[in-house]
Amino acid sequence: MNDQNYIVLYETERKKINHILSTALKNRKPVSLYEPGSYILNSGGKRLRPLLVLLSSQAVGGKFSDAYNAAAAVEMLHNFTLVHDDIMDNADKRRGRLTLHKKYDYNTAILTGDSLLSIAHEYLLKDCNGNAKEVISSFTHGLIEVCEGQSLDTDFELRKNVSLSEYIIMIKKKTAAMAEMCCKIGALLGGGTSSQVKALGNYGLNLGIAFQIQDDLLDISADEKEFGKTIGGDLIEGKKTFLFLEALEKSRGEDRKKLLRVIERKGIRRNQVPSYKMIYEKLGVLEDARREIKSYTNKALKSLAVLDEKNKKIFKWLADSLIHRTS
Amino acid sequence: MNDQNYIVLYETERKKINHILSTALKNRKPVSLYEPGSYILNSGGKRLRPLLVLLSSQAVGGKFSDAYNAAAAVEMLHNFTLVHDDIMDNADKRRGRLTLHKKYDYNTAILTGDSLLSIAHEYLLKDCNGNAKEVISSFTHGLIEVCEGQSLDTDFELRKNVSLSEYIIMIKKKTAAMAEMCCKIGALLGGGTSSQVKALGNYGLNLGIAFQIQDDLLDISADEKEFGKTIGGDLIEGKKTFLFLEALEKSRGEDRKKLLRVIERKGIRRNQVPSYKMIYEKLGVLEDARREIKSYTNKALKSLAVLDEKNKKIFKWLADSLIHRTS
Repeated sequence: MNDQNYIVLYETERKKINHILSTALKNRKPVSLYEPGSYILNSGGKRLRPLLVLLSSQAVGGKFSDAYNAAAAVEMLHNFTLVHDDIMDNADKRRGRLTLHKKYDYNTAILTGDSLLSIAHEYLLKDCNGNAKEVISSFTHGLIEVCEGQSLDTDFELRKNVSLSEYIIMIKKKTAAMAEMCCKIGALLGGGTSSQVKALGNYGLNLGIAFQIQDDLLDISADEKEFGKTIGGDLIEGKKTFLFLEALEKSRGEDRKKLLRVIERKGIRRNQVPSYKMIYEKLGVLEDARREIKSYTNKALKSLAVLDEKNKKIFKWLADSLIHRTS
Repeated sequence: MNDQNYIVLYETERKKINHILSTALKNRKPVSLYEPGSYILNSGGKRLRPLLVLLSSQAVGGKFSDAYNAAAAVEMLHNFTLVHDDIMDNADKRRGRLTLHKKYDYNTAILTGDSLLSIAHEYLLKDCNGNAKEVISSFTHGLIEVCEGQSLDTDFELRKNVSLSEYIIMIKKKTAAMAEMCCKIGALLGGGTSSQVKALGNYGLNLGIAFQIQDDLLDISADEKEFGKTIGGDLIEGKKTFLFLEALEKSRGEDRKKLLRVIERKGIRRNQVPSYKMIYEKLGVLEDARREIKSYTNKALKSLAVLDEKNKKIFKWLADSLIHRTS
């Protein structure tokens, strides 16, 4: 298979996942609960997590059809986190549409999130057989990590002295643990051995870290049109990203003072973004980020030694697409 | 065993459950997430749901020790619902203490709730072995029902024409489904047959309905000192309880107009409670409630025909204690 085949496969599977998600809440009552649930599940998204589940199942000799419900389940779990995170961040927009609490209200959003998590478990259970305990343990562990990661993220907003290594721990929990979990449950449902499950989990974990640093990098270096969001949004909001913390650790004198001002003032104005981008460039933190992304991606790919060449290739394609994405 | 023995047994087991709950979140990080979690888990409570798990396990020949973690898990699930419900109801107090969102803040309460649910799954899994899929399916079904029940409850607040039968559907989902689930997972973990699991589930379901109607009845008929809350609180808040809806269905003329005013004005003043209690008494709805409580309790007990006499007796004691409770 070449890259074009992979793109077609991804699109095909994405449509199937979208179909499961769009029908999952149909005919359920009360409408006041499941209509908001459908609103968020039908709002698009890359569906990367479901793809990790499916590919991991296939990689160990399973079929996609062993894991479609689980694939839908991880996307529901992901959407649960988005709905609750958007409340906590007081975000107005998500995937170009109003966030759930803006479209409806806070109470609806809290309960819809809870309900998505409950239906996620229902879907996950559909694909579980003999190894239900292991599969659900992985899922639960991912959920616990996400909650802890979100809590750390909130802590970091209030703290002034966050180190880069603390940041890596936070994104491991908040973002990467879920990618790890997707690969593990895919491999478990596909009938993988424990070393295959572990290997694919490591792939997901490291890919997830690379993905998040790439997210931080895109925020300042993307093309505004392709990116679809304001460039420098993280600086404007005063977020402690990889780039910001790396810059802070490397900077001295005036640059450092200027960076510390972002923390003190909880963000900057939009017209200040270019001057901060210049500091980033001077300190070489964009290059540092690219190096880290590459390093974690390589770690991800190295952990796949147990797989055959055909399967290695598709995971390599996926990792490359994520590194080269523009939004 | 006589009633005194049962009371001692309940107290002993309640302490064990409290111990598991008080240590469950210790040494976990971040503190910002698990300290609020401990705050709610250590705030007391009847621990009735864990007791249902333990007794159901024993009733089918299992041991309490087969189900302690599951018993803690259902209490964590219950506390998750309390934390999120308190946000939605904008409640200030819970079990005589500040609600979580008042003690901390809204974001902390949302995330703490999510996290309690995740740890509940972790604890439930500890007790699962061969039948993990069935146990977790029951747990998940209970969680789905609770979300749907909470959504219906919110719908009812805004609707003017709620029928008694709709009310019963709502409390089945919001309250009784969880008691049903507790009995089912206890029976499953104790190694019960499918007819035993079903029978105990029916006990829990009907007991749960009786419990909620009793809750509605106590709100207007309890002794204020023993009750610990304002008498008539449901009328003051304009809640559509069993008593209110029964009164509405039975009333005509002036009484009906007065009752409809509770809906229109979304509640009454504290000094109006006695005049509404008089309407309730005139219409006989307190008696109706007592009759319904008895009827659901009898249904609960009848479903236990499959159990031996010794086990029937303890479940009868539990049902009687709930009917005769004063708070």
